[in-house]
Amino acid sequence: MESFSLRLQRATAERGPLCVGLDPAPQTLHSWGLADTVQGLEQFSQRCVEAAHDLVACIKPQVAFFERFGSQGFAVLEHTIRTAREAGLLVIADAKRSDISTTAAAYGAAWFGETAPLAADALTVTPYLGLHALQPIFEQAQQANCGVFVVVSSSNPEGRELQLARVGSATVEEALFGAIGELNAAASEPYLGAVLGATRPFDREPVSKMSGPLLIPGLGAQGATPQEVGERFSSLANTLVVAVSRAWTDAGPLNEDLRARASELQQALHSALS
Amino acid sequence: MESFSLRLQRATAERGPLCVGLDPAPQTLHSWGLADTVQGLEQFSQRCVEAAHDLVACIKPQVAFFERFGSQGFAVLEHTIRTAREAGLLVIADAKRSDISTTAAAYGAAWFGETAPLAADALTVTPYLGLHALQPIFEQAQQANCGVFVVVSSSNPEGRELQLARVGSATVEEALFGAIGELNAAASEPYLGAVLGATRPFDREPVSKMSGPLLIPGLGAQGATPQEVGERFSSLANTLVVAVSRAWTDAGPLNEDLRARASELQQALHSALS
Repeated sequence: MESFSLRLQRATAERGPLCVGLDPAPQTLHSWGLADTVQGLEQFSQRCVEAAHDLVACIKPQVAFFERFGSQGFAVLEHTIRTAREAGLLVIADAKRSDISTTAAAYGAAWFGETAPLAADALTVTPYLGLHALQPIFEQAQQANCGVFVVVSSSNPEGRELQLARVGSATVEEALFGAIGELNAAASEPYLGAVLGATRPFDREPVSKMSGPLLIPGLGAQGATPQEVGERFSSLANTLVVAVSRAWTDAGPLNEDLRARASELQQALHSALS
Repeated sequence: MESFSLRLQRATAERGPLCVGLDPAPQTLHSWGLADTVQGLEQFSQRCVEAAHDLVACIKPQVAFFERFGSQGFAVLEHTIRTAREAGLLVIADAKRSDISTTAAAYGAAWFGETAPLAADALTVTPYLGLHALQPIFEQAQQANCGVFVVVSSSNPEGRELQLARVGSATVEEALFGAIGELNAAASEPYLGAVLGATRPFDREPVSKMSGPLLIPGLGAQGATPQEVGERFSSLANTLVVAVSRAWTDAGPLNEDLRARASELQQALHSALS
C-alpha cells in the first residue's frame, strides 16, 4: 500500500478537497427521521457512505457520536469504516486521542493496521501531553502507511489562550508546526498533518514549514465561507482536506440531495481555491 | 446520589488514597499467563475487580487497552465498569477525551449518567482545545453527580514545554489550576479535579487554589516512591487519589498476591502522607 500522504494527494487531486464529516448527533438523526438509537446510527452512517463514496476523497466519522452508544456504537463504527474504505474512501477517524508510552501504543493498535478492529487511514490526536509523547502512535501509523492529524489550531475560540501561549519566542502553535515539520522531514514520506481551523486568518509561514496535509474544519456551521477558505489556504503547498459536517448532512436524508450538496460544496471549494 | 467529591472523600478516608490502574497491555496479559485476546482482557479485568473491591477507593481502567479490541473491548469495559461499581468501587475512566460543542456533549453522554453505556464515576480529559470548550462534558458530569479530572501536569517529560508555556505572567498549568478553581467555586460542590504527575516537585500555591481532588500518576513504574509522594502532596487540602498500575498488577495473577500488594501500597502511602 502507498503512504497515506500519496493516497491523500491523489484522491484530493481527483475529487477535490472536500471531506464529509459524520456527526450523528441526536438532533441530526431526528432531522433525518431516524431514531436516536444504534439502528438510527447505522442507517445514517450507511446512507452517508453510499452518497459520498465516489464524490469525495475522505470521510471523517466523529468518534464521540459512536462512543455514546458504547460497544454497540463502536460496532457500527467498525462497519462504517470498513464499508467506506471498501467503497474507495479514505477514512479519517476524528477521535482526538492522546496518551503516553504503552497507552499511546494501544491507541495505535486500535486504529492502524489491517488487523486493527477500527483500521482507519488516519487518526486525529491532541498534543497536550507533548507531541513527542505521541511517538508510539506515530510509529504505528507509519508502519501501516497511515497518517495522523495533530490538532494544532482548533476552530473554537476557547482554545486560543493555550494555543497562543509562548514557548520562548514562538507560540505553542508555531512550535508544534515546526516540530511536525521536523518529524516529517525525518520520514521517507510526510505522515503527520495538522488540524487548522478555517475560522480565522493565520500566519502562513510556520504552516508552510510542516510539509504535511492540513485538515481544515470550520466551514459552514462554524462560520467560514468557501471564499474565506480560499483566501486563507490557496497556494499553500500542503494537501488540503476541508471538513464539512452539518452543512453537508443538513441536505439529507435523500441520497440525491446529499449527492447534489456534496457536488456543490466540491465546486465551491474548487472555485475558491483555484 | 451524593456528589462525586463527597463520595470520593469518604471512600479515600475509609480505605486510603490508592487507586488501582487497569492497564491490560499485551505484556501484562502475557505475564499473567493470559492470552492477548478479548477473553484474556475480560479475565484480567474481573480478577482485578475481585482483588481490589474492598481494599481501595477507586479503580482506573485505561481505556486505550480496551479500545485496541474495538467494539468487543468496549463490551468488556462496560462489564468491568458495571461490576466494579456494583462491588463498591468508584470508577475513573482514563480516556483523556477532548472535543468541543455537540461532540463534547456526546462524550459526556457516553460516560455519565445511569443510562450511559459506559457510566463511570469520573472521566479524564485533556485541555488542548481550551478548558471552557469542555463545558458540555462538565455539565453532564454535574448532572450525573460525577467528576472530571483535567490533565494539567502530566507525569511524562515530553509535556513540560507546552504545560509550562506562558499565558501572560502565568504558565499554562497555573492558568488551568486557576480556571478549575473558579469553575469549582461556582458549583455547589467541586466536581473538577486535576491530574498532577508525582514524578517531580511542583509549586503548591496554584494547586491549593483549585479546591478539587488530585489524581496522581507516576508512582512505581514511572519513578516516584511513596516517600516522594508524601513529601510532595501531604497536607494539601485536596482529596488525593494515587494511581498505581503496573506496580500493582505485577503482583498478580493470584488473588492473594494482588490483595497483599494493594494492602502494602495502601500502608506505604498512609505512612508517607501522615
